[in-house]
Amino acid sequence: MQNDQDQTNINGATALIETLANCGVELCIANPGTSEMHLVQALDRVPRIKSVLALFEGVCTGAADGYARMTGKPAATLLHLGPGLANGIANLHNARRANSPMINIVGNHPNYHIGYDAPLTSNIDTLARNYSSWIKSESTASTLAQDGADAFTATLRQTPDSQGQIATLIMGADAAWGGSGGPVAPNSLPQRAKIDDDTIEGIAAKIEQGGNIAFLLEHHGVSPEALANASKISVKTGCRLFTGTFPARVDGGPGNPEVERLPYFPEQILQTLQGLDHLILVGGQIPASFFAYRGIPGQLIPEGCQVSCLSRVEEDAIDALTRLATRLGAANERVKTFERKSIPRPSGELDTKSIIQAVAATMPEGLIVATDSGGGNAAHAYCQNSAPNSWLALTGGAIGQGGPVATGAALACPDRPVLAMLGDGGAAYTNQSFWTQARENLNVTTLIFANHSYNILNVEYARLGVTDVGEIAASLFDIGSPELDWVAMAKGFGVAGAHAKDAEDLCRLLEESYKTPGPFVIQARA
Amino acid sequence: MQNDQDQTNINGATALIETLANCGVELCIANPGTSEMHLVQALDRVPRIKSVLALFEGVCTGAADGYARMTGKPAATLLHLGPGLANGIANLHNARRANSPMINIVGNHPNYHIGYDAPLTSNIDTLARNYSSWIKSESTASTLAQDGADAFTATLRQTPDSQGQIATLIMGADAAWGGSGGPVAPNSLPQRAKIDDDTIEGIAAKIEQGGNIAFLLEHHGVSPEALANASKISVKTGCRLFTGTFPARVDGGPGNPEVERLPYFPEQILQTLQGLDHLILVGGQIPASFFAYRGIPGQLIPEGCQVSCLSRVEEDAIDALTRLATRLGAANERVKTFERKSIPRPSGELDTKSIIQAVAATMPEGLIVATDSGGGNAAHAYCQNSAPNSWLALTGGAIGQGGPVATGAALACPDRPVLAMLGDGGAAYTNQSFWTQARENLNVTTLIFANHSYNILNVEYARLGVTDVGEIAASLFDIGSPELDWVAMAKGFGVAGAHAKDAEDLCRLLEESYKTPGPFVIQARA
Repeated sequence: MQNDQDQTNINGATALIETLANCGVELCIANPGTSEMHLVQALDRVPRIKSVLALFEGVCTGAADGYARMTGKPAATLLHLGPGLANGIANLHNARRANSPMINIVGNHPNYHIGYDAPLTSNIDTLARNYSSWIKSESTASTLAQDGADAFTATLRQTPDSQGQIATLIMGADAAWGGSGGPVAPNSLPQRAKIDDDTIEGIAAKIEQGGNIAFLLEHHGVSPEALANASKISVKTGCRLFTGTFPARVDGGPGNPEVERLPYFPEQILQTLQGLDHLILVGGQIPASFFAYRGIPGQLIPEGCQVSCLSRVEEDAIDALTRLATRLGAANERVKTFERKSIPRPSGELDTKSIIQAVAATMPEGLIVATDSGGGNAAHAYCQNSAPNSWLALTGGAIGQGGPVATGAALACPDRPVLAMLGDGGAAYTNQSFWTQARENLNVTTLIFANHSYNILNVEYARLGVTDVGEIAASLFDIGSPELDWVAMAKGFGVAGAHAKDAEDLCRLLEESYKTPGPFVIQARA
Repeated sequence: MQNDQDQTNINGATALIETLANCGVELCIANPGTSEMHLVQALDRVPRIKSVLALFEGVCTGAADGYARMTGKPAATLLHLGPGLANGIANLHNARRANSPMINIVGNHPNYHIGYDAPLTSNIDTLARNYSSWIKSESTASTLAQDGADAFTATLRQTPDSQGQIATLIMGADAAWGGSGGPVAPNSLPQRAKIDDDTIEGIAAKIEQGGNIAFLLEHHGVSPEALANASKISVKTGCRLFTGTFPARVDGGPGNPEVERLPYFPEQILQTLQGLDHLILVGGQIPASFFAYRGIPGQLIPEGCQVSCLSRVEEDAIDALTRLATRLGAANERVKTFERKSIPRPSGELDTKSIIQAVAATMPEGLIVATDSGGGNAAHAYCQNSAPNSWLALTGGAIGQGGPVATGAALACPDRPVLAMLGDGGAAYTNQSFWTQARENLNVTTLIFANHSYNILNVEYARLGVTDVGEIAASLFDIGSPELDWVAMAKGFGVAGAHAKDAEDLCRLLEESYKTPGPFVIQARA
């Protein structure tokens, strides 16, 4: 009835975990169950991989995303059958949109047990198909180590369009407990494809023709070296530089290349790009409306605007922009960086504007910012003259990402301060992040924009032309009855916090939290 | 570019919601986003359906499950694209295992917008396939009303094996906003299939042959009328009666038919059924081990035990048991019911035993109990002599079900007290339930067994033969560092609570909470 071949001292689970460690995996964020006990035992035997527990799988996957954005490397998650995986999917969706490498290890019943239809049995593959670029669901004890090496390779292999870089290894318990031949050697690492000379030449020629030209830089196209080369081209030729509305990570602030960010609403994007003759895509696609609206186009470029693609998401944007800069004689141009300016500290009552100003005025050097709120997103532009920073946006629109991503970023960069700017609606989804922050003593400051509503929905409802919001509709946007008390909730998870009374108080709380090791939660009425 | 045919006053969304109301849907538990704004508008126009907001989709789906278990009727959920659905899947898995009817309405981009690959785009169908018995993903404004009527019918159509009764309607925003022909009439209601006379006769003949015989009653087979007839057969013939380990709902306590419940671990089930000659399945399958273990069989009946099936999950167990009772001359036998006994109130320190005793000693009449913990499950047997009750178990093994199910049961039965007995691990998954309980002033008492660990995993790890638990493994079972403060967390969501100091205090807190309208949370160190 089962593969009972534990002849060696090394079972499949240990061979898998040792292989992943050999590949370079350093972190496993886990929420295990009974079917993963041998994997827990394996993690116990391989302390080279740091094991971190989370109370909800959306924290595991979101933290692995944050870790990947800050290191470029995959963390592993350990998840319990279909339901455990399902709980992680919203943040796997965001991670796919961020192109973050990640290895999900999902425990399952042995194949021979699945026919008995025990309560936790479900079709896990259907779930994995939603977000995975690589799936293996029929591992045996003897293939598990190689499957792990292949999963690792898959996370670093760039895939076309928006397939992402997430590998999912669904592993029957018998593969974990069965005897194996031990760990395998890592595969060779995949490389990004270089783009051809004709493409560089074609785009260079178009730029030299002149006109109103912009680059839209996404994914690999906003990595620091890519941005620096784009900046040189911009300085030389006058092209404008944009990132998408919600980039996975952009390093900004004084000393980093200046770049504009596309706004959110379709009308705003069309207005920003008005008069554009030519849009050059680097690592992304033509801007699309976040949602569909009646009578508003889905693709957001001015009529008659030409579009060229320098490099696709899976291609080497750094190489392409470096060669393009050289071809245009811009290789030795200066990089135009954000300037440092003194931001006055706000005073008086809190509102979205004064909260943003408080953040900008108090930013420490090297702050990592994770946003999951309208206010947090709006803060980006106001914070780029304060201090060098890494800004991690809500890539896939699935709220509940900011807390977990901040947690993972702090695990990746223990020496940098992290600020999570969260809406109260989104933060409620994955409030369990607080607990892992407390357990690991992570330097995460969480700032809650407490407007006590799904405020974006009030805005969107008005966009339908509904001026008279009925009682039932209003109740479905209102999360202020009862009001959420974030300081109490954080205390429930072992994290200290405070209500900011006014703008001065908020500045003081932010500065104190940045200076003090460990997590802290600040509730600010927005 | 879009179906802009809003020629009538009724758009697809309103036609859908009016149709669902006409079918008999009375509750929609929602977490909407921009793509569902027209549905919100429709809910605003159709107050016959009560709209309830939840802060996390797992609460929506779990509450709809609890509502279905108490009413037999589907509630609707309103979910936001793939990620919103994904957040609800763990409890949809549990609801599928409970055979609960439910209609999920999942908003999506219009088809014409999907090609632009906006951030929230994903393959929603792959997710829906995990748990749905019915999926429609290509609705238009003109089909939406009929699709809603069909979804309603699908939730009441019994499906074979463990396909469940959950319908998922994935609806592009253009179907919602486009013009429609208005609501449609409900379809006729499906009926359970009756089983044939030969099957009744064959099983009656086997029972009359004598021997050690047991019924395993599940799903329709544990509905009150089915249980009463099974009890008559038991009284007449000496057959034993069992429910499965985790039934969706059993009405027990004084006055209700006495029935044993199968234990959890495979060895315990085998021991319980030792010596059995013949097992008669009613609405379920041969007991399977919850997890697979090396060297332990997956199907848990003694060697040589015959198995017959009286009725399958989709067939009419009430009719089958009524006819079988008549055939066996048991129609006029008495029903053996649980007796009422006085349970002494516990005193002194809290542990799992004294907590269970406190619950049993203080049970009010008609209590609805939702469990999501080892302690809560263990309490079942001890509580059946206290007061009539409806007991809702964790059907699918996906923890985080108890709070949402309790919320839905309270929405279904506002005049009955509800007790959620949750483990601290499981309750952390869907703590957002507290908020909906506060908002709707639901009579839910939540009792947290705070053992500060995933204790079942300590037990399971020991079952692997691991006696020396390493530091990393221990850390992955320990949720006590930091300790969760449930009274603070509940306060964060607007719910009052208290720490029970000892067994007397727990009795007092339980009784006070049952008497007081609205939710209350009690943390008890287990």
